[in-house]
Amino acid sequence: MSAGWLRRRFLPGGPLPAPRPSAPRASPVPYRRPRFLRGSGSSPAADAARRPDARPVRSPARGSALPWNAGYAEIINAEKSEFNEDQAACGKLCIRRYEFGAEEDQEWLTLCAEEFLTGHYWALFDGHGGPAAAILAANTLHSCLRRQLEAVVEGIVATQPPMHLSGHCVCLSDPQFVEEKGIKTEDLVIGALESAFQECDEVIGRELEASCQVGGCTALVAVSLQGKLYVANAGDSRALLVRRDEIKPLSSEFTPETERQRIQQLAFVYPELLAGEFTRLEFPRRLKGDDLGQKVLFRDHHMNGWSYKRVEKADLKYPLIHGQGRQARLLGTLAVSRGLGDHQLRVLDTNIQLKPFLLSVPQVTVLDMDQLELGEDDVVVMATDGLWDVLSNEQVALLVRSFLPRNRDDPHRFSELAKTLIRSTQGKEDGPAGERQVSYDDVSVFVIPLHSQGEGGSGP
Amino acid sequence: MSAGWLRRRFLPGGPLPAPRPSAPRASPVPYRRPRFLRGSGSSPAADAARRPDARPVRSPARGSALPWNAGYAEIINAEKSEFNEDQAACGKLCIRRYEFGAEEDQEWLTLCAEEFLTGHYWALFDGHGGPAAAILAANTLHSCLRRQLEAVVEGIVATQPPMHLSGHCVCLSDPQFVEEKGIKTEDLVIGALESAFQECDEVIGRELEASCQVGGCTALVAVSLQGKLYVANAGDSRALLVRRDEIKPLSSEFTPETERQRIQQLAFVYPELLAGEFTRLEFPRRLKGDDLGQKVLFRDHHMNGWSYKRVEKADLKYPLIHGQGRQARLLGTLAVSRGLGDHQLRVLDTNIQLKPFLLSVPQVTVLDMDQLELGEDDVVVMATDGLWDVLSNEQVALLVRSFLPRNRDDPHRFSELAKTLIRSTQGKEDGPAGERQVSYDDVSVFVIPLHSQGEGGSGP
Repeated sequence: MSAGWLRRRFLPGGPLPAPRPSAPRASPVPYRRPRFLRGSGSSPAADAARRPDARPVRSPARGSALPWNAGYAEIINAEKSEFNEDQAACGKLCIRRYEFGAEEDQEWLTLCAEEFLTGHYWALFDGHGGPAAAILAANTLHSCLRRQLEAVVEGIVATQPPMHLSGHCVCLSDPQFVEEKGIKTEDLVIGALESAFQECDEVIGRELEASCQVGGCTALVAVSLQGKLYVANAGDSRALLVRRDEIKPLSSEFTPETERQRIQQLAFVYPELLAGEFTRLEFPRRLKGDDLGQKVLFRDHHMNGWSYKRVEKADLKYPLIHGQGRQARLLGTLAVSRGLGDHQLRVLDTNIQLKPFLLSVPQVTVLDMDQLELGEDDVVVMATDGLWDVLSNEQVALLVRSFLPRNRDDPHRFSELAKTLIRSTQGKEDGPAGERQVSYDDVSVFVIPLHSQGEGGSGP
Repeated sequence: MSAGWLRRRFLPGGPLPAPRPSAPRASPVPYRRPRFLRGSGSSPAADAARRPDARPVRSPARGSALPWNAGYAEIINAEKSEFNEDQAACGKLCIRRYEFGAEEDQEWLTLCAEEFLTGHYWALFDGHGGPAAAILAANTLHSCLRRQLEAVVEGIVATQPPMHLSGHCVCLSDPQFVEEKGIKTEDLVIGALESAFQECDEVIGRELEASCQVGGCTALVAVSLQGKLYVANAGDSRALLVRRDEIKPLSSEFTPETERQRIQQLAFVYPELLAGEFTRLEFPRRLKGDDLGQKVLFRDHHMNGWSYKRVEKADLKYPLIHGQGRQARLLGTLAVSRGLGDHQLRVLDTNIQLKPFLLSVPQVTVLDMDQLELGEDDVVVMATDGLWDVLSNEQVALLVRSFLPRNRDDPHRFSELAKTLIRSTQGKEDGPAGERQVSYDDVSVFVIPLHSQGEGGSGP
């Protein structure tokens, strides 16, 4: 992304791509469920043929193990869409030595194993506007991440990242400046995750355009590397650390509400992006004709507090961000403000684009597992918003803490726990109405046990 | 501030004011010390005539009481500048009923006292590029704040701010929408503080231009209103709550380092602002010719982590943000990224302006004093950066906790404590070198006791 990119890409006069290419250059992205569900009875056909009262909770076949013996389960929505728009991926992350081309030091090359560094990867993608973007992300993001990590792997395995990445040896250059800035090896992994999300976003943009498809997705990724767990989030999924005496969110949600100031700021700088159809200002409700001339509560991009303004005609336009909580929408269209894809997304019946307001860059948090005295039942629960809309962090922790100690002998207990969590979002059919909140959304859950993390190997 | 303001104001083709008006329209802002130091032996002449080894610590004359019996002390820098560029102000804040003009309800008017709501106000301003901006801010900001509060006072005294500010009565309109957004009366005070800082910034810009002067200042303000203490900060001063068992920062600092991403983002959107003279990218040190073609650590606006890039010629330019910690500078010029003034500030020998990168809007924190069981020695310490450069929060708390209990009988103990804090920044002349860190900067300190807060009156 270069300077002036946004202007060139999105503003009048720039090389705006046509809303739709005239003919597809490739076949559409085929619908599928995560690879690791093979043999579990899950099939795309079953999704399309489901009845609302017969939505099965799916998880990997007994006997097929995910990294760290993690558990997984998913359920499709109650006919909100034809397909399950959630996707998941996980696997071992094998980071090879970077090839440096002509000047490479042959002697050093022979000292290096083919797999220089290994880690593990779990990812959830919650699609919207169709399943294509989430499927592409599940197919692609881990490759982008591997490439980005390989580009800096020398620095990652050093005690401190060198100022210069020589390609010849891991020798510290200018350590005093790196020290002063407090740059640590984990900052290179964070940087690689940030770059990987952006690279993956570009791939999705190209692929969807080529296949004449649309859509976007959120992305929540956990990566284990050298004793640390990195959680990168762009969207409204959530990762939660649950231990015996501790609950700790490892991500925060990015929605039009939580990113209000960033979004309003962009509309302030580039009012053209609203094409005169929306107002950048926030009001407690949409204004009507009889509010004209009155003083009403409002908030602009620079304000955390509220003030009053006299209503003018322009204030009656539809608000840039409208609605509360789960109903909050960006430009009346989208419930999330970060994610991958949506390159072609426009406000219905207009040419107003959503993409300039969306960020693909994730927020990354780091959990230093080596610093924790991990218990057998300490887990990270990763789930799409369908779970968190219905269950609070505390309710999830309660379910984790009551389920795991009672099922220590079951080798599939983490998938069983993931299923239990999903079933808790489905209400009780024979119970009194309102006894439980019910999720009609797709829900996908990973349960990652931390205790066995040493066993997976995190070399070199 | 209207949409497109930044572009119209700062970008090529906009109505850029000439760097200096040709002739002054008003006389320069006269130098002075805070009003409440009158009778304390403090005088502007004494500042100019000082010798480095004879810098007195000044505080209000014994017998003159500041709001809540707060203490104050200041010291001028060791000849870094001719004048003390810090300024201070405090006083009672009398908020009157807002005048609504022709339609006003006469009956309601007669029910209102002249002073509708009262609070208190303490402010510190740390000037740079001359004392003028700080003096103007000390003269002006409280009036801006009073005006802004008066504009919304009806909403502030209501249980919940009404959607509509009628001017006739405090009646709730559309309470369900206000409730849903979670808008509270304190949000109106936060909004008023945000607007007051911006209004004051505009006044300073006009006044300095008219009097052919330059300069800027940071602003740290504490306001008590209806049992709450609001702390608004734009710059690198700091307010710290010190209680027997608790230390709590009530502000955070805004410097080129803490606001790196915001500043880089602006340069990404408007590369013209750097006029080809600076690079937006961050490197561990300034790059040199022999870094060309090598891969070095860098960070751009969207990154929290670090990555490597191959050095090009443009990367050798001076960095937008350069240096570490107290030495970090914006465009090689300024150590703070928020504050008032600096409308004419340019990078030395260029036409590159600093103002587009600066924010005048403060961050506001709220301390609900009614929720605290306040002890006799619970205080808020407000001080300019000269204090915090030398003393940590913990060291300040230690000094507070050892001084106050031993001096309960002294009615001037809070000013004595402020003096003690300042003396702790001046080292020991006869002690071994390096025994204590020494501040050569201006230092100004308020010590605000919270225990007597009820006595000051916070009606109506």
